[in-house]
Amino acid sequence: MRTHEESHQPLILVTNDDGIDAPGIRALAAAMDRIGEVVVVAPTEEQSAVGHAITVRNPVRVRPWPIQLADGNVNAHAVTGTPADCVKMAISQLLPRRPDLVVSGINRGPNTAVNVIYSGTVSAATEASILGIDSIAFSLCSWDLDRYEDAAFHAERIARKVLREGLPPGILLNVNIPALARDEIKGTLVTRQARSRWEESFQERTDPANLPYYWLSGTFVNMDEGEGTDLEAIEGGYISITPIQHDLTAHQLLNEFARWDWGAGEGQ
Amino acid sequence: MRTHEESHQPLILVTNDDGIDAPGIRALAAAMDRIGEVVVVAPTEEQSAVGHAITVRNPVRVRPWPIQLADGNVNAHAVTGTPADCVKMAISQLLPRRPDLVVSGINRGPNTAVNVIYSGTVSAATEASILGIDSIAFSLCSWDLDRYEDAAFHAERIARKVLREGLPPGILLNVNIPALARDEIKGTLVTRQARSRWEESFQERTDPANLPYYWLSGTFVNMDEGEGTDLEAIEGGYISITPIQHDLTAHQLLNEFARWDWGAGEGQ
Repeated sequence: MRTHEESHQPLILVTNDDGIDAPGIRALAAAMDRIGEVVVVAPTEEQSAVGHAITVRNPVRVRPWPIQLADGNVNAHAVTGTPADCVKMAISQLLPRRPDLVVSGINRGPNTAVNVIYSGTVSAATEASILGIDSIAFSLCSWDLDRYEDAAFHAERIARKVLREGLPPGILLNVNIPALARDEIKGTLVTRQARSRWEESFQERTDPANLPYYWLSGTFVNMDEGEGTDLEAIEGGYISITPIQHDLTAHQLLNEFARWDWGAGEGQ
Repeated sequence: MRTHEESHQPLILVTNDDGIDAPGIRALAAAMDRIGEVVVVAPTEEQSAVGHAITVRNPVRVRPWPIQLADGNVNAHAVTGTPADCVKMAISQLLPRRPDLVVSGINRGPNTAVNVIYSGTVSAATEASILGIDSIAFSLCSWDLDRYEDAAFHAERIARKVLREGLPPGILLNVNIPALARDEIKGTLVTRQARSRWEESFQERTDPANLPYYWLSGTFVNMDEGEGTDLEAIEGGYISITPIQHDLTAHQLLNEFARWDWGAGEGQ
């Protein structure tokens, strides 16, 4: 187990939703290990599309699960829970002190547009932000290409920047990285989520007992013709950085809705 | 099975996260049945705290599960999935046409402040909003008192208002109702989510094989001293209506972050 005697090193929690054995988390842990003291706390198994689920009706278990990097082992733990559970467990139980930064990923596949809301990768970073800790979600925009080392190069740069500058309260960064070699990346753009949805078409099948069951399937539909979206950045070969917030209140509409007659006076 | 011959009646999908047998969904279905044609599609079992999880790695099953009300049965289906799954399944497979409104609840317990982000009740309404359908999440602010009939009285009023007025695109309503008798409710306030967090303290226990396991536990902390919050409304005996959005982009910070030197020009 590597020891970090220099107490001035930032403490960085690394997590993900693809599971502790995923190649993306290994690349991210190695990149963060060049910046500070790393502890990995990640789900035992893949937890994609769990959104901001937390485990309240079952107990969770934690096991030491050292991750071997080129120059030594990283302190790591596998948790039988969701990404948000991992962050809660790490900060409450496993870390020697409050971390300076939480990074999540590098996810296999993009977390752009509406997919942010289904993403376990983003939810881990969101949980950290709720707890008042700066956090970043990283995703590689490919399910096939192993560009994690290239993506981790950029993750390191962005994490250093966030550690230097700090983020505003309640804000985290959602970073999507094109599956390109380092010298093919065009640059970095700050973006908004593209308006989009999944159009579902469940596949109906029949089991051996002749009973029906369904697989969720669907087609991604980009409904956004505007500029400055995360999808546009990725298509153009740019890294996309979207600042996101966990306060879901539509503040811009509070006055308008307050003028509605809701019809419940005293005694209603 | 009740039939609604009047095709001009609004079609209302009713779902929840407490499961199809919960008292809250029965009260909500009965209230919506006074407004239009109701179809219930809800999880077979309780799905609290699942956030915006969807089921992508397992199949889901659907069973007819008629709900008996005082004046007849309501068309209802139980789905072995999450609240967001139920909405996708209903709209893609089960409903005769696109619904005019989706309502979720009435949840057992409040979905105020940061709890919005963990809530399966809210996520079902969010999924409908993503799909472009007006939606409302209803929660009763008690885990013990059976005030569902009283809460459903207010849910009916608010649902009628939303059907008449329509909601802006991408906006849903998160409604929390105090556990009070009808004539004790002070009125209705449009609110914002209170800034808050859960301070976790996992309970460590030891199983019969002497291995440790943890239960997620915690204390809710309201960090918000400001006015106009959902928590303040509920404490004062008012119904709280918070407009929320599923676009998580921090639009107000895009320009500020765009001015940061992200350090990746061409060839980075």
